[in-house]
Amino acid sequence: MIKVGIIGSTGYAGAELVRILTNHKEAEIIWYGSRSYKDEYYADIYQNMFQIVDAKCMDENMEVLAKEADVIFTATPQGYCASIINETILSNTKIIDLSADFRIKDVDTYEKWYQLKHESPDFIKEAVYGLCEVNRDGIKKARLVANPGCYPTCSFLSIYPLAKEGIIDMNSLIIDAKSGTSGAGRGAKIDNLFCEVNENIKAYGVGSHRHTPEIEEQLSYASNKKFAINFTPHLVPMNRGILITAYGNLIKDVTKEEIRSIYESYYKEEHFVRFLKDKVTPQTKWVEGSNFVDVNIEVDTRTNRVIMMGAMDNLVKGAAGQGVQNMNLMFGLDEQCGLDLVPMFP
Amino acid sequence: MIKVGIIGSTGYAGAELVRILTNHKEAEIIWYGSRSYKDEYYADIYQNMFQIVDAKCMDENMEVLAKEADVIFTATPQGYCASIINETILSNTKIIDLSADFRIKDVDTYEKWYQLKHESPDFIKEAVYGLCEVNRDGIKKARLVANPGCYPTCSFLSIYPLAKEGIIDMNSLIIDAKSGTSGAGRGAKIDNLFCEVNENIKAYGVGSHRHTPEIEEQLSYASNKKFAINFTPHLVPMNRGILITAYGNLIKDVTKEEIRSIYESYYKEEHFVRFLKDKVTPQTKWVEGSNFVDVNIEVDTRTNRVIMMGAMDNLVKGAAGQGVQNMNLMFGLDEQCGLDLVPMFP
Amino acid sequence: MIKVGIIGSTGYAGAELVRILTNHKEAEIIWYGSRSYKDEYYADIYQNMFQIVDAKCMDENMEVLAKEADVIFTATPQGYCASIINETILSNTKIIDLSADFRIKDVDTYEKWYQLKHESPDFIKEAVYGLCEVNRDGIKKARLVANPGCYPTCSFLSIYPLAKEGIIDMNSLIIDAKSGTSGAGRGAKIDNLFCEVNENIKAYGVGSHRHTPEIEEQLSYASNKKFAINFTPHLVPMNRGILITAYGNLIKDVTKEEIRSIYESYYKEEHFVRFLKDKVTPQTKWVEGSNFVDVNIEVDTRTNRVIMMGAMDNLVKGAAGQGVQNMNLMFGLDEQCGLDLVPMFP
Amino acid sequence: MIKVGIIGSTGYAGAELVRILTNHKEAEIIWYGSRSYKDEYYADIYQNMFQIVDAKCMDENMEVLAKEADVIFTATPQGYCASIINETILSNTKIIDLSADFRIKDVDTYEKWYQLKHESPDFIKEAVYGLCEVNRDGIKKARLVANPGCYPTCSFLSIYPLAKEGIIDMNSLIIDAKSGTSGAGRGAKIDNLFCEVNENIKAYGVGSHRHTPEIEEQLSYASNKKFAINFTPHLVPMNRGILITAYGNLIKDVTKEEIRSIYESYYKEEHFVRFLKDKVTPQTKWVEGSNFVDVNIEVDTRTNRVIMMGAMDNLVKGAAGQGVQNMNLMFGLDEQCGLDLVPMFP
Repeated sequence: MIKVGIIGSTGYAGAELVRILTNHKEAEIIWYGSRSYKDEYYADIYQNMFQIVDAKCMDENMEVLAKEADVIFTATPQGYCASIINETILSNTKIIDLSADFRIKDVDTYEKWYQLKHESPDFIKEAVYGLCEVNRDGIKKARLVANPGCYPTCSFLSIYPLAKEGIIDMNSLIIDAKSGTSGAGRGAKIDNLFCEVNENIKAYGVGSHRHTPEIEEQLSYASNKKFAINFTPHLVPMNRGILITAYGNLIKDVTKEEIRSIYESYYKEEHFVRFLKDKVTPQTKWVEGSNFVDVNIEVDTRTNRVIMMGAMDNLVKGAAGQGVQNMNLMFGLDEQCGLDLVPMFP
Repeated sequence: MIKVGIIGSTGYAGAELVRILTNHKEAEIIWYGSRSYKDEYYADIYQNMFQIVDAKCMDENMEVLAKEADVIFTATPQGYCASIINETILSNTKIIDLSADFRIKDVDTYEKWYQLKHESPDFIKEAVYGLCEVNRDGIKKARLVANPGCYPTCSFLSIYPLAKEGIIDMNSLIIDAKSGTSGAGRGAKIDNLFCEVNENIKAYGVGSHRHTPEIEEQLSYASNKKFAINFTPHLVPMNRGILITAYGNLIKDVTKEEIRSIYESYYKEEHFVRFLKDKVTPQTKWVEGSNFVDVNIEVDTRTNRVIMMGAMDNLVKGAAGQGVQNMNLMFGLDEQCGLDLVPMFP
Repeated sequence: MIKVGIIGSTGYAGAELVRILTNHKEAEIIWYGSRSYKDEYYADIYQNMFQIVDAKCMDENMEVLAKEADVIFTATPQGYCASIINETILSNTKIIDLSADFRIKDVDTYEKWYQLKHESPDFIKEAVYGLCEVNRDGIKKARLVANPGCYPTCSFLSIYPLAKEGIIDMNSLIIDAKSGTSGAGRGAKIDNLFCEVNENIKAYGVGSHRHTPEIEEQLSYASNKKFAINFTPHLVPMNRGILITAYGNLIKDVTKEEIRSIYESYYKEEHFVRFLKDKVTPQTKWVEGSNFVDVNIEVDTRTNRVIMMGAMDNLVKGAAGQGVQNMNLMFGLDEQCGLDLVPMFP
Repeated sequence: MIKVGIIGSTGYAGAELVRILTNHKEAEIIWYGSRSYKDEYYADIYQNMFQIVDAKCMDENMEVLAKEADVIFTATPQGYCASIINETILSNTKIIDLSADFRIKDVDTYEKWYQLKHESPDFIKEAVYGLCEVNRDGIKKARLVANPGCYPTCSFLSIYPLAKEGIIDMNSLIIDAKSGTSGAGRGAKIDNLFCEVNENIKAYGVGSHRHTPEIEEQLSYASNKKFAINFTPHLVPMNRGILITAYGNLIKDVTKEEIRSIYESYYKEEHFVRFLKDKVTPQTKWVEGSNFVDVNIEVDTRTNRVIMMGAMDNLVKGAAGQGVQNMNLMFGLDEQCGLDLVPMFP
C-alpha cells in the first residue's frame, strides 16, 4: 500500500486527489495537509467526503511527512515546492508537484513569466515533466515529477502528433482555450463569485498567461524547433472542463485522412487519449470526472489550416488524475489503476 | 457474472445504469435497448462511453432478452413494463422496473394519478417496492422490483424515522422539493431547453404530481396511518440533484437531541444514508454522482415543527444507483458492489 | 430633477439602483458612495456602466451629502443607517434605507434576530415600511422609508389577500423560499464562489433567517393576529430571482374561484403585481430585470390547503426597484416613473 | 407612430424585438406573427409580456400586412423572406430581414453555404446590409435591409478598423467565437436541452459555419482585398452573449498605442461601440440586454500578432437591437431611440 501525503489537500486539485485516491486500491492517504484548515476534520471542509474520510487536516511538516509518506503531492501555490525541496526529502520520498515550479527547464523563463525567484534551481534538471503519454520511461524512474499544467496537457496532446511529424508551421500556432472556473482555484475572490462568472465569458491573461512558455517548451521538444505561439484562455461558466481549439498552417501536402491516420497511430495504444470519429467535436461534458482527453481535428482546405480540438476535465487529466497516473508509473503499478473513472453525463 | 439487459438505455436513467454497471465487477450489460436509436452505436449517442462501450443499440425483444439476461432493467415510460410483463418472462429472468408501474399497490390510485389503464394488475401484489433500506428482505427474494421514484426516495428517507416513531402529525406533512433538470428526461421539449431553464426556477405539478400517492403510501406503511400530504416539486437550473425540505408538526414532546438520536439509530448501519452533523444542511453537490442520501433536521421551537431535509443525486440513488443496489440484493451480492461512487465536488 | 445620493453604490443592490436611475427621467445620481472603491471610477468597477457613468466613487460624508442630495439611498450593511441617522440629516434630505434597520418596529425583536444593538431606536417609529402596494399614503409623506427585504416583499404580496381576508390559519403558514445568488451580496466569500453554488442547491438559515420576524410583523398587521411561521430560504444557482412557495390551511369554506376573485380584486389596480391565469405557475425568469411580482395560487382539496406562489427579481422589486418606487411616491412622481422595465427573456 | 409587423415573433429574436419595441416611443407593434402559435395570446407564450401585450399571434398574410405595416421584421428561417418578397410588398412597406437571405451579394455563395435555392435573387442588389456603423447612409434610404448575423456583427466591429487601415494580413485572420445558447433558437432539439448544454462547451460548424462568407464579404469591402478566414463558433452554457477572439498578423510596424488610437478615432462617435480601456477584456455580461458592442485589442510582440476581442448581446446588437437601430435610421428617427438599454449586471 503506497502511503500518500497531500500538501494543499483543501484546494480543488487537492480535493480531487482525495476523491480519486479514496478508490485507489494500492494507495492510502496518510496526510491531509492544509494550512487554512489545520486541525479541522477534512470532511467538515469537503462534506462530500462525510463518512468517507475521518482524518483531520494537518499543518505541513515536511521532515516528518517525508519519512512517513512514500509519495507527496504538492497541490500548492507556485514557489512552495521549490522552497521546501532538498536532497534529504528526496532521499526519503518521491514528490509529484502539481505547481509549475519544476515544469520549465530554463530558470530565467520561469522567473520572468511567474515573477518569482526560483529557490531550488538545482533540482530543475532532475525533475521529469509528468506527461505520461510522452515521458513514460522517465517518469518510472523519477524521484521528482513536475505534473503538467491543465492547459498545457490539453494543448499538447491535441497538437503533439502534428508537431512531431512536422506537418504544421509551429510559428503559426494559435491556441484558443476555454476553462471551467475550478481552474481558478478556491480562493475567495470577487472575480470568481457565482454572479460574476455565471452568464458570462471573457478572455484573460491575453498574451501573458503563464502556461504559454510551458506549452512552447514541450512542443519544441516534439517538433525540434523553437517558436512562439499565441495562447488565449477564457473563463467559462461551468465548474469543470477545458476545451482547446488550436489553429495551425499546414506545411505539408496532406489530406485529412492522412492526418487522421497519424493521430490514430499515435493514440491507438493510449488509453486516456480518445481520438474521436470524423466530424465529432470534443465536448467537455463527455469527459467530466474522468482522466480522458478527447481529441479531434478538422482540415480547412480554403485556408490550408488544420483545426485541432481537445477536451479534458481540468481537475482530473489536468491535475489530480494525471498526478495519480504519474504515481502509478513511479511505483510500477498499472498506469490505469484507480483511474477507471467513467465520464458522468449529464 | 450477471447478464444485464436494459430497456431504455438511451434515456438519462438508462445511461446512468450504463455508467454504473460499466464499473460493476459482477455484472455485464448484454443488451442496450433503445427504440429511438436502434442499430446505432451506443457510444455515438452517449459519447462519454466512446471506447468504453462497443455495442449497438437494439430494439426490444422481450422473449429473447428474457432468456439471455439474468435481469432486465426497464428504464421506460409509464405503462411499458406493465404492458410486456408475463409469467413466462418472470420465470426466465428478474425485472427491476424504473417506471412507476408497480410501485403503487392500489390499482385505482395508479390509474387515477397516471391517467393510464394498468395492463398487468395481477403482478402488482408480487412486486416488491425496492427501497433497499426498508424492504431489504423482500427484495432479496423478489422476481419483480418496483424501483422507487426519485422524489419518493429522497422524501421517504428524510422523513421515515419520525413517521415510524409517531413523532409528527402525518397530516401536517408538507414536502417542498427541488430537482435538477435531468429528472425531466431527455425528450426534446421547449420547456427543457437550456434557455428556458437557465436563470429560472418554478414550481410544477402543484397539487397533482404523480409521486404524491407513492410518498403517501410508503409513509403510511411506516406510520401505520392514512393521511394526505402536500408535495410541490420545483425545477432548478442544474443537471442533477434533488433536495427536499419537509415540514411536520411535532406531536410528541421531544428535544432536537432526541430526534437526532432517533435518526442516528435508524441510519448508523445504513451506508448510503448519511445523517449529517448538527447545523449542516444537505447540499445536492455533496452527493453528486454518488448513491448517498444526505439527511438532516432542524427543530423550530417557535412553531413546534421539525424541518426535515434530504439531498440526493436523482439519477443515482433516485434511479440507476438504487436499481443496482436492488440488483445486488436480488443476486446475493454485497449491497455496495459497484456503488463505491465518491461524490464529485465541485 | 431629484438629486440622489447612494451610499453603498458598489454592492449589487446599489449597482441596480444605478442601472435603474440612469434611465429615470426625473432623477440624477450626484453621489456614488463606496468605501471599498473610493476615488476609483464607478465604471471601472461596474464595466457595464462604461461610457454611461463618468463619476468616481466617493467616501461617505453624510453631512455634505445630506445638504446636496434630495434623497439618499443607503444600500449598506445592517446597522449602518441606524448609526448615522439624526434629525439634522432628516431635516435636510430624505432617506430610503435598503437595510433592515428601520423595518421592524420592536427594537428587541430587531436586536435579537440581527444580533446588533440598534443605535437610533428613536427613529423607528417615524420610519415608514416601504411596501408601496400597502403603505402608499404613509410613504408619500415619509422622510425615512425602510425599504422592505427581498423575501418579505415576495412573501407578503403572495399571501397578503388571504391574510387580510382571514382565509388561512396564519399559524399554519409555511414559506419555502428560493433565491438567486445576488441576494448574498458581492462579498468575497468561498460559499458564494461559482464552483460552490453552481450545480447545487441548499437550504440556509433554517429556523433562524432574519427576514422571518419582518414577514411575521407585516402579515400580522394585515391579518390582525399574532402568530409564528416557518420560513426557509434556499440558495439557487442563478444570478437573480426569488420564488416563494407558501402553504396555509384554509379556515373558511372557499372555492378556488373565490380565492382567485379575491386576488384579482386586490391586485387589479396594482401595476407591479401580476396575478397570473389559472394553472400558470410563477417563474423567476419571467420577471427578470423588472419590478413585477408574479403571483398565483393553487388549492389542494385533498389537504384543504392553499399553495401561494410568488416570483420576483430580488434586485429590482426586492431592492432597488422598490426603492425607486418609494422615491417616486415620496416626491409626488408617477409611481411607475423609470420602472417601465420589461422582463428580459431568455 | 411607426406601425410594425413581426413575422416570427415567437422565436427568441422575435421576442426580443417585442421586448425592445414595447418601450419604443415612436413605434407600435400591430402584428405578432407566429405560425406555431396562431390565435394564441402572445403573453401565453412569452409570459414575461403578461399584462404588457394583449394581442394574439396571427398567421402570416403578407398582402394584408404590407398594407397595414410601415415596416415588417422577418425573424424567420433562412429562405422565408426570399420566398415572399416582391415589388408590390416593397412598394407598400419596408422590410428588415433578420435572416441571411439578403446579406450575401453573390447568390452562388449564398446557395452553396446555405444549401438553399435563393427564390428572389433580383432583390439582392437592392438590399442594404444593415450594419449601421458602416452603412448608415444606405440604410436611411433602403426599402429592404438585410440585418447582419450575430457573429458577423461582433466580428466585423472588432476587426473593422484594422482591416480598413490595412494593418493586418487578412489571410491570417482567425476568429474564435463563443455564443450563448439563445443563438441556437427556440426549436425543441435534444442538443439544446439544459442537460446537454449546461456544464459543457464545444465547437460546432468547424470550417463550415454559414456566417463565414458573410464575415469575409463585409471585411473584404473594408480591406479592399479578397481572402479566406477561419471562423469557429463554440456553444457556451449561458443564455445570451457572443464573445469573439480574433487573431491577425501585423503587416505594418505599429505600436499598441497607435492601434488604440485607430480604434478610438473610428469609434469615438459611435454610441453603441465601446472601445475599452487598455487591459480591460470584453465580457459578455457587461453588455447583456443592451445594444453595446465592447471591443478591445492586445498586441503580442513575441508573435507579432494583434488579438482583437468583442463582446455583444447576440439577441440585441446581434439581432433585434440592430434591427431597431436600422428601423430608426430608415424612418429618420434618432438612431438610439428605444435603445437606451442599460446592461444588466449581474
